[in-house]
Amino acid sequence: MPDTESLPSLLAAIASPADIRDLSNDDLRALADDIRRAIIKTVSQTGGHLAPSLGVVELTLALHKVFNTPEDRLLWDVGHQSYAHKLLTGRQGRFATLRQYHGLSGFPKPSESVYDPFVAGHSSTSISAALGMAMATSIQGRAERAIAVIGDGALTGGMAFEALNQAGHLDARLVVIVNDNEMSISPNVGAFSSFLSRKLSGRTMRRIKRHVEGKLLELSSLGENILNLLKKSEDSMRCFFTPGMLFQAMKFDYIGPVDGHDLDQLISTLERVRDSAQDPGPVLVHVLTKKGKGYRPAEEKPGLFHGIGPFDVQSGLPLKKNSPPSPTQVFGDTIRQLARQDERVVAITAAMTQGTGLAGFAEEFPDRFFDVGIAEQHAVTFAAGLASEGMRPVVAVYSTFLQRAIDQVIHDVCLQKLPVTFAIDRAGVVGDDGPTHHGVFDMALLRAIPDLILMAPKDENELRHMLFTAISCNQPAALRYPRGAGQDALTDEPPHQLEIGKGELLREGGDLLLLPVGNRVYPAMAAAEELARLGVSAAVINPRFIKPLDTELIGRWAGRVKRVITIEDGCGMGGFGGAVLELFAARRLWGVETRILAHPDHFVEHGPQKILWSNSGVDSQAIVTEALLCCERCQKLAN
Amino acid sequence: MPDTESLPSLLAAIASPADIRDLSNDDLRALADDIRRAIIKTVSQTGGHLAPSLGVVELTLALHKVFNTPEDRLLWDVGHQSYAHKLLTGRQGRFATLRQYHGLSGFPKPSESVYDPFVAGHSSTSISAALGMAMATSIQGRAERAIAVIGDGALTGGMAFEALNQAGHLDARLVVIVNDNEMSISPNVGAFSSFLSRKLSGRTMRRIKRHVEGKLLELSSLGENILNLLKKSEDSMRCFFTPGMLFQAMKFDYIGPVDGHDLDQLISTLERVRDSAQDPGPVLVHVLTKKGKGYRPAEEKPGLFHGIGPFDVQSGLPLKKNSPPSPTQVFGDTIRQLARQDERVVAITAAMTQGTGLAGFAEEFPDRFFDVGIAEQHAVTFAAGLASEGMRPVVAVYSTFLQRAIDQVIHDVCLQKLPVTFAIDRAGVVGDDGPTHHGVFDMALLRAIPDLILMAPKDENELRHMLFTAISCNQPAALRYPRGAGQDALTDEPPHQLEIGKGELLREGGDLLLLPVGNRVYPAMAAAEELARLGVSAAVINPRFIKPLDTELIGRWAGRVKRVITIEDGCGMGGFGGAVLELFAARRLWGVETRILAHPDHFVEHGPQKILWSNSGVDSQAIVTEALLCCERCQKLAN
Repeated sequence: MPDTESLPSLLAAIASPADIRDLSNDDLRALADDIRRAIIKTVSQTGGHLAPSLGVVELTLALHKVFNTPEDRLLWDVGHQSYAHKLLTGRQGRFATLRQYHGLSGFPKPSESVYDPFVAGHSSTSISAALGMAMATSIQGRAERAIAVIGDGALTGGMAFEALNQAGHLDARLVVIVNDNEMSISPNVGAFSSFLSRKLSGRTMRRIKRHVEGKLLELSSLGENILNLLKKSEDSMRCFFTPGMLFQAMKFDYIGPVDGHDLDQLISTLERVRDSAQDPGPVLVHVLTKKGKGYRPAEEKPGLFHGIGPFDVQSGLPLKKNSPPSPTQVFGDTIRQLARQDERVVAITAAMTQGTGLAGFAEEFPDRFFDVGIAEQHAVTFAAGLASEGMRPVVAVYSTFLQRAIDQVIHDVCLQKLPVTFAIDRAGVVGDDGPTHHGVFDMALLRAIPDLILMAPKDENELRHMLFTAISCNQPAALRYPRGAGQDALTDEPPHQLEIGKGELLREGGDLLLLPVGNRVYPAMAAAEELARLGVSAAVINPRFIKPLDTELIGRWAGRVKRVITIEDGCGMGGFGGAVLELFAARRLWGVETRILAHPDHFVEHGPQKILWSNSGVDSQAIVTEALLCCERCQKLAN
Repeated sequence: MPDTESLPSLLAAIASPADIRDLSNDDLRALADDIRRAIIKTVSQTGGHLAPSLGVVELTLALHKVFNTPEDRLLWDVGHQSYAHKLLTGRQGRFATLRQYHGLSGFPKPSESVYDPFVAGHSSTSISAALGMAMATSIQGRAERAIAVIGDGALTGGMAFEALNQAGHLDARLVVIVNDNEMSISPNVGAFSSFLSRKLSGRTMRRIKRHVEGKLLELSSLGENILNLLKKSEDSMRCFFTPGMLFQAMKFDYIGPVDGHDLDQLISTLERVRDSAQDPGPVLVHVLTKKGKGYRPAEEKPGLFHGIGPFDVQSGLPLKKNSPPSPTQVFGDTIRQLARQDERVVAITAAMTQGTGLAGFAEEFPDRFFDVGIAEQHAVTFAAGLASEGMRPVVAVYSTFLQRAIDQVIHDVCLQKLPVTFAIDRAGVVGDDGPTHHGVFDMALLRAIPDLILMAPKDENELRHMLFTAISCNQPAALRYPRGAGQDALTDEPPHQLEIGKGELLREGGDLLLLPVGNRVYPAMAAAEELARLGVSAAVINPRFIKPLDTELIGRWAGRVKRVITIEDGCGMGGFGGAVLELFAARRLWGVETRILAHPDHFVEHGPQKILWSNSGVDSQAIVTEALLCCERCQKLAN
């Protein structure tokens, strides 16, 4: 384990990648130690994606030494492994602000550095983007290269395959580095992964062998001779059949595998790639790395150290405050409970077993748990297939990643009204991960879809009832709940079915109506208390259902008080507030003065959720302010 | 070419697949002729997807003969090749109503038949759905099989790869039939396709050979012997390296290639698959077919006969009325014109070169044209990559298929405000193709996204200006335009830039304001004329921009007349009408009586556009009716 004390360091002398291009490989190795120390020190304080970044320190050094960044474009797929890259590209001085409000982003960000040519955050986009860049430079007659660094996990995302498929067809100056650490976030379970790692099962090898034998027999004498030789050893076949062949067949030049922690080998390989100008067309370099490399706790538990909060460097233990169970945990516990009662319940994740709270379910119900890889599109249609045969699949997915499968929700689930449940975690702003990860669009995207029930619980207890309701309502249903600690509202009441489309009146009031949704209900109740102290009487309705809305309850109260404030942790364009306006228009309640508190129409930056809620004016204080304004206006009008 | 006269036919005796299971292969061949005759006759009258359906007649017969449908689930990917399937599964009597209003759907539809276990319409979903079904039957201890029939074109869609990747990992009773006709809708250009068809280039073969040689040399003497044998012939290598190996590596049992028009071979192969119960796990059967098989005009021009309107059976020529150029044609002409003036303009399609009007562009600018395969996700991020390097990519895509890439529009284009243009064709209801293809969600989905300009032209002339505006506005922009004939409004005025966010007042009026969007502007103008005759004075504003809305113009007129009707060819939840309500709320224009005319909150059936517009109440007549209601109410209130 590297020492984390600040030492006079080689790193401090590196202002940009130009400064490493003359260093010896020995110096680079020392620099790698410095970089690891800096990453561990900062992430132990700020939290962040530790294991991925530690795994690519040598690869980052080798890429910047060999290629002419920033003219050559370097794209980190997903981008959570870019900390070493940030340290080498002029951002050391600000590195302690990583993921802090107004500090460095945890992901590549073009507005932060010319060395970040493209936004990253979601998986499997880098080959597409790099191929676009490579074709642009080709059309423009420029000579820069585009280099995509993509993990084996991200390769399971379909769009990476779509991009490989087109790239092979074009003579692009494209370099794809496969960073193969044999796991993505959850261990990588697809067929492709075992192919990549050559861990083909005996059965698969036998199948291939049988197949090849058949083909060889068609080849007359020549084939028979080869066959006899191959029959002597299954190992020869195993060796013959390498990942390289797949990529070669897709018209990439394949180089590898290369030890991703051996700087000499990495640099000489990449130099060969850089200098092989005579052979245009895409090149794929297969690099083997170890997640968490150089920090033993992370090497041993790369899943735990994938994305982590502040931790103690010596012990590797998280520095955690006591907080009530998160919505994620409550979801995980509840789905296990429901699965015990109903054997139709199955759970699906797209490589987010831990993050969505499904680890316990996976352990208890291994045959009813499916990790499909980073493949949200497939996850949703796979769930639809299960539902069409009588199962009750629950797709647990982050709001931001469900954006990948909107068409499948429409076309494969809702169009045939299949009983798939979407458990949408990380809905609303997520905080430190920032704009690529905020889950602010789901209400606007999903409420347009017919036959989908859309709910948002005010707290963990309601989450349990909503999950039960979704699973038992016999049609497509979604519930969205936020990142972070819960409201400490958990009871041992058994989950029960809520009446579809019925909200709850939480508080009566004569001056105005607060209509908060999901995690905005508690802040709205606090605001109503505060308003009461100030002499304003605010009713509060928890709609529970974004779709179908409780037309009767909301319509009745809105018609009575005439002033409504909607509050949501979501985008203001087409979101919950818009749904309420549409309700009023449909009911001809035109005179109701409705104000919408929501995130504004720009991408929200990263930072603590509390600051982001405050900035967007969707917290308690903002509700009080808006309510006073609204009542003042109404008082003036009354005079 | 089969005779298309109605003959006493074998087909008439087939009430369900049970009736073909005892037929001899000779009888099945005769039945295949009957089926082709029936398909050609009907489609020549109704229009439809002719070539895909003619290509799979024998495959359809063989599948229903060998497998126990409907207990075994048969899924046709995309579904446009399911006409023979419909004829064999109890729908002969209604076959003449194909794609007609209240008639048979052109796609598999569970509500139409138990033989259609899953909705299809969009590409590349069948393996995911079938895998879900197979896992459900496995969990439930049932023995039925799930069979997905997927074209080589649909295999380029990333989610098909995602599904294959998971399937290989599971011991599913899954059968995947690859219907390899060496083209999807446009000729299939990806690397994967040439791999599948074994048309590997000499360069690729040399690369593979070089790679394999290297690997073999690592194998000491055994390897050297094989190497010497392989060196004797490049053909041996070519044969050795088959599509089977890829699928075997992905842990499928691979069988093929099989001649898809040879019933004997097909049936015996499928029987082998059905009976090989001892080896669980997925099986892939590679079937070679010819699009348009059995009808010469379609065999010769499968692209033209992919989806076609009514045609003359003898000549194969379309029966076309004279109609003004369609928006698609005008888009195609205009982008060529703009590309001549601006060398940054490049065009991208996801396997829809013809459908999106890009054939001329592709011919004129082959180096600036990219058909990426059926891969909308990649298409959008590829465009973002091009834009990030100074190009001005135009992604031409149907509204319904853009649903596949919403996340990429958000995360890869808009988050970094890249100048990508989305030319969204088939926006609004598309008519005969029905609910899987209606483009009614785009406004609701897209207007939630920050920094995206969203336009809808009232006619072809405005389309040209909007395309120019999108390309020259230096940020993400989209224009949506409908299927069908244009308004005959084309002028030779050069395309010019429209002021962003400015609408146009088309007609003044004192009683109410009509706010139609896109293709609803002309019907609204007609309604205003009619209203004038009836003594009601309606103002009409063409907003041009759905986002940003012309707050000033719309706000001013709405404030003046107090009664507004919005009209859109889109969904009513969160669409254009919702945007107008949000505008009024933001401007505190609470007293405006706003009525939203849009498609209701259910999936719209198939049928002629005119009927669908009338049913949803978004045509001229509906506008007049609503306006009269609205004014009547206002007159009553005034008394």
